[in-house]
Amino acid sequence: MLVAGASGYAGALAAALVWRHPRLELAAATSRGEAGTRLDRLYPRHRVPVELAQLDLDQAATCDAALVAYPHGAAAELVGELRGAGLPVVDISADFRLHDLSVYERTYGDHGAPELVREAVYGLTELHRDAIRGAKLVANPGCYPTAALLALAPLAEAGLADDVVISAASGISGAGRGGGERLAFVTVDENFSPYAVEGHRHTPEIAQELGELGSKAAVSFVPHLLPLDQGLLASCYVGLSRGVGEGELRSVYEERYADEPFVELVDEPPGVRDVRDTNLCRVHVSLDTAGRALAFAAIDNLWKGAAGQAIQNLNLMLGFPETEGLQ
Amino acid sequence: MLVAGASGYAGALAAALVWRHPRLELAAATSRGEAGTRLDRLYPRHRVPVELAQLDLDQAATCDAALVAYPHGAAAELVGELRGAGLPVVDISADFRLHDLSVYERTYGDHGAPELVREAVYGLTELHRDAIRGAKLVANPGCYPTAALLALAPLAEAGLADDVVISAASGISGAGRGGGERLAFVTVDENFSPYAVEGHRHTPEIAQELGELGSKAAVSFVPHLLPLDQGLLASCYVGLSRGVGEGELRSVYEERYADEPFVELVDEPPGVRDVRDTNLCRVHVSLDTAGRALAFAAIDNLWKGAAGQAIQNLNLMLGFPETEGLQ
Amino acid sequence: MLVAGASGYAGALAAALVWRHPRLELAAATSRGEAGTRLDRLYPRHRVPVELAQLDLDQAATCDAALVAYPHGAAAELVGELRGAGLPVVDISADFRLHDLSVYERTYGDHGAPELVREAVYGLTELHRDAIRGAKLVANPGCYPTAALLALAPLAEAGLADDVVISAASGISGAGRGGGERLAFVTVDENFSPYAVEGHRHTPEIAQELGELGSKAAVSFVPHLLPLDQGLLASCYVGLSRGVGEGELRSVYEERYADEPFVELVDEPPGVRDVRDTNLCRVHVSLDTAGRALAFAAIDNLWKGAAGQAIQNLNLMLGFPETEGLQ
Amino acid sequence: MLVAGASGYAGALAAALVWRHPRLELAAATSRGEAGTRLDRLYPRHRVPVELAQLDLDQAATCDAALVAYPHGAAAELVGELRGAGLPVVDISADFRLHDLSVYERTYGDHGAPELVREAVYGLTELHRDAIRGAKLVANPGCYPTAALLALAPLAEAGLADDVVISAASGISGAGRGGGERLAFVTVDENFSPYAVEGHRHTPEIAQELGELGSKAAVSFVPHLLPLDQGLLASCYVGLSRGVGEGELRSVYEERYADEPFVELVDEPPGVRDVRDTNLCRVHVSLDTAGRALAFAAIDNLWKGAAGQAIQNLNLMLGFPETEGLQ
Repeated sequence: MLVAGASGYAGALAAALVWRHPRLELAAATSRGEAGTRLDRLYPRHRVPVELAQLDLDQAATCDAALVAYPHGAAAELVGELRGAGLPVVDISADFRLHDLSVYERTYGDHGAPELVREAVYGLTELHRDAIRGAKLVANPGCYPTAALLALAPLAEAGLADDVVISAASGISGAGRGGGERLAFVTVDENFSPYAVEGHRHTPEIAQELGELGSKAAVSFVPHLLPLDQGLLASCYVGLSRGVGEGELRSVYEERYADEPFVELVDEPPGVRDVRDTNLCRVHVSLDTAGRALAFAAIDNLWKGAAGQAIQNLNLMLGFPETEGLQ
Repeated sequence: MLVAGASGYAGALAAALVWRHPRLELAAATSRGEAGTRLDRLYPRHRVPVELAQLDLDQAATCDAALVAYPHGAAAELVGELRGAGLPVVDISADFRLHDLSVYERTYGDHGAPELVREAVYGLTELHRDAIRGAKLVANPGCYPTAALLALAPLAEAGLADDVVISAASGISGAGRGGGERLAFVTVDENFSPYAVEGHRHTPEIAQELGELGSKAAVSFVPHLLPLDQGLLASCYVGLSRGVGEGELRSVYEERYADEPFVELVDEPPGVRDVRDTNLCRVHVSLDTAGRALAFAAIDNLWKGAAGQAIQNLNLMLGFPETEGLQ
Repeated sequence: MLVAGASGYAGALAAALVWRHPRLELAAATSRGEAGTRLDRLYPRHRVPVELAQLDLDQAATCDAALVAYPHGAAAELVGELRGAGLPVVDISADFRLHDLSVYERTYGDHGAPELVREAVYGLTELHRDAIRGAKLVANPGCYPTAALLALAPLAEAGLADDVVISAASGISGAGRGGGERLAFVTVDENFSPYAVEGHRHTPEIAQELGELGSKAAVSFVPHLLPLDQGLLASCYVGLSRGVGEGELRSVYEERYADEPFVELVDEPPGVRDVRDTNLCRVHVSLDTAGRALAFAAIDNLWKGAAGQAIQNLNLMLGFPETEGLQ
Repeated sequence: MLVAGASGYAGALAAALVWRHPRLELAAATSRGEAGTRLDRLYPRHRVPVELAQLDLDQAATCDAALVAYPHGAAAELVGELRGAGLPVVDISADFRLHDLSVYERTYGDHGAPELVREAVYGLTELHRDAIRGAKLVANPGCYPTAALLALAPLAEAGLADDVVISAASGISGAGRGGGERLAFVTVDENFSPYAVEGHRHTPEIAQELGELGSKAAVSFVPHLLPLDQGLLASCYVGLSRGVGEGELRSVYEERYADEPFVELVDEPPGVRDVRDTNLCRVHVSLDTAGRALAFAAIDNLWKGAAGQAIQNLNLMLGFPETEGLQ
């Protein structure tokens, strides 16, 4: 396994998960800015005694698979090269999440490998498990879409979601490494604020997937920044297409998630602390007095929202049990 | 001035604000459980070198006014006695906020002084300034309603709010003193979770006031618990009754809040840290791609959400400048 | 395996470690106050789907071993009963740590099973590995002594520690469950303070063990409370009995800890975050300009400082590999 | 008043304190990197509606006094120019704290205005009040020396301090703005670690002042980084030159600080939260069983440890009451 971009938060965790995975071997962990540094110096908690290397494409081509954790925009080209060398790839960036190239370009700018967009499967396992099994390029979902879609999918699939508000909040690690003063302790400590209110780049991703599930709901989505490290909560307020009782509502979720190894349906509102350092998504649903469904999903943004999800996808692509190395 | 219930977070801050107020004198700060303890031992930061006393009604009757910070349910009776003795009262509890007694009883249980409900004025100064000026009993608003209503009032008054989702979050001090394991550091640290999703007691309060402003919107409201001390953010997602441009939307807010000393209309999403230890409410409004208005209001839950608001009201009731002792 | 007192922080983690241990089976997890509650409701992160039970001594007698996580004073009697039934016991409380009964009584009060004090082995594995291997009753060390002794042992054993100041700090979980207002979020958030400055109960424990290592140093020890969940740092300032160079100093530590699976000697000052959720102790030593040795040890107070250490001891007592279930 | 370097944490607070000071006028607040930005955008909490400007020496020369908050090394030259223009100056940097130029150069590098070193008075008001009154150049103390010296001065002056260990901890704001990944939330959250163990630059400053008070104690000093914003605690462990009882010890402190407006002698160990956003220093002293005096001092590192102390000095230099603008 190659993990490219292993000095960022998600890439480093991906490298650590590969390192401990019973069926994977960490052939190389690369970094453009931190080559030469050992991973366990950058991230002592992960305890991966491996030196970060510069990417060597020839060497990479000898790997069985690759996990790319480059920033948006920078990933596509590398993914193209790795795919050219025949490697199955999970891309953690946003570069292959949007099926419609024009939406991508409006949201992120030029695309570095547009010819591959079609090949890519959207990697929220719970929605696209079969396609992921046969895929060679999986676009790992964004952290907010992961939680929001897991909260909303049962309603969307049942044709119940008429109108959707997603008020979400993420811990600081979700913003990535190198945020400068904006993510300095003194800036975010004892603080809580919305951001990207003019339109976050995860909105089209959520809309695309809800659309595929049959929902035409207008989606309002606002992310907030939480004064904690790892954790993400999506609080979804859903106008329903018809009257639904509390019991029916719960049944919809219970049936949908009965066999999902990483989705826990819980009878109390979930806290992000409950899923920290796990690949789990805790979901709770209820009905409020205004007739809206309230659906909450809590994940660890670095696990189920990034690196854990990537391993889950990789397991399927390589024919391993889905939960291998994630428990 | 009598401050009754000065050992709780809001009551203690109220006592401190009275203590520093240029035109008020802290005649007595009382506590049922902590009488005999000095306030500056319980709350060193407030630096109020006054011993908490047991309430003495005869002595209370000699005060010019009273501020009651008892828990819901326990306040009404004392308020009745103080009003009986002729004192103007600001009640920080929920006991006199709801005009409809049956709604109160459904929400909080039996009422200890139902005959006074009519007399009480809802004390969100920005909505009821004139009535507060002449009032003898002011029901200080809840912390969530304060932020939510300041975010929503301009839309409601303009007849624009058709449909309202309020996703709000408060720091731990909002839950009050004595919360036990539920509010222990280890429980809430690195955590974020919704609560009271089956219906929070502030919902009828918000609905009442929006109704008075002419809005019939169905209100969904979910509070969340933030891992910080003081601060509250209301994130409001509003379906509009007609198409409105960004410019018109901002104008509505600018005109509404042009002369409000404690409302700051800001051009970036507000953080709760920006208003900590102040009586300010920072409001930001924008339009999202789904056509909803997004209105955010950040306050310090102990100041504008409780004790600061109480002093603001008291200033008006006693004929002082509204901002006295709050800057 | 019986885990008695599994509703507290340390006991719950001990139950979780037993639950996941490849060679142990969690026969019962008991709690006096929370019997009937499932552990994964009290502590979702541990994911132990087991209901807490009332202690049943007859059933307990059928277990292979027991781990007792009762409060100081309450543990001794139960330990006596379990030993009476023939079970090997690791006691996480302080009840059997002090060899001198009069020191125990002065520090903690009456002892509930004084006849067993002699039998008990002090369970800091790195100091007493051989004795623990053959022991039937192991007194698990306190969290502060664990870090302090691992920082100081190489100097004490080498006869170098003449004079010792230990300035230590622990996360809030170290203070245990049920601390009320003293451990409420609002009290400790953004705070840092020393406590027990008149003499902490871990001081005689540290002195006893340093004495056994041959040091007669007068020990000053002050603990501080940190605004974080899990983590403990002991910062030790040691007056040396003779001039020692930086190189010699490091060699002393390198030799002492060369084969210790849970002690990491690091070349930068350790942070508690680096060892969170692990049984590791990170140690760093240097020499300052005043000629003192500075020795720092960072642990997770709930792991190496309590439950992890208990499993490490249990492994030895039961003849398993020392690191089993701890990696 | 000119505040030069007002975009850093200490400089911005200094500007805010000047802005609110009843006898000072903020003529200009300058910044090399942030000129053109309004202070209340960078630091909303300070509420100073003033645009940061580039420094203009001609304009500066028209001010009554200046407060320089440049980084170490960069300050000296500007201080020289301002003194050349005749302005009284308080320098918050380290550039004029050390009387011995060779010690400065060893610690910080070349000095930009060595001819002024002699003129400078060390600005810990409680130690040098009279000299500050007549001074034209005051070197504001470092944050650690401020707390450590206030904890130790009574002992040093009484000839009791034989041997000194200072274990201190500061909130993140003490490290200043622009710390990058080292001060990112994710790095310091839930962390606690010592730093600069090979010798912190504040050590010679502490030694110089203790020496002036007559103490020849060898000083060990280690700072630690706390996961909080504002607050600093110095925990001092002092070997005494002769046997002293608890009563005598307390008397020494009571007499020393009886008339100090900003030193609070308290009978419980102080927490940094108790002094946040104030210019106070809380001191507690006791005797431990090893015969050492334990002296603790808590300050807000940005107030008494920097900007508040600067205003206190300025008040004296300009003939104002010492506490003006600080209460």
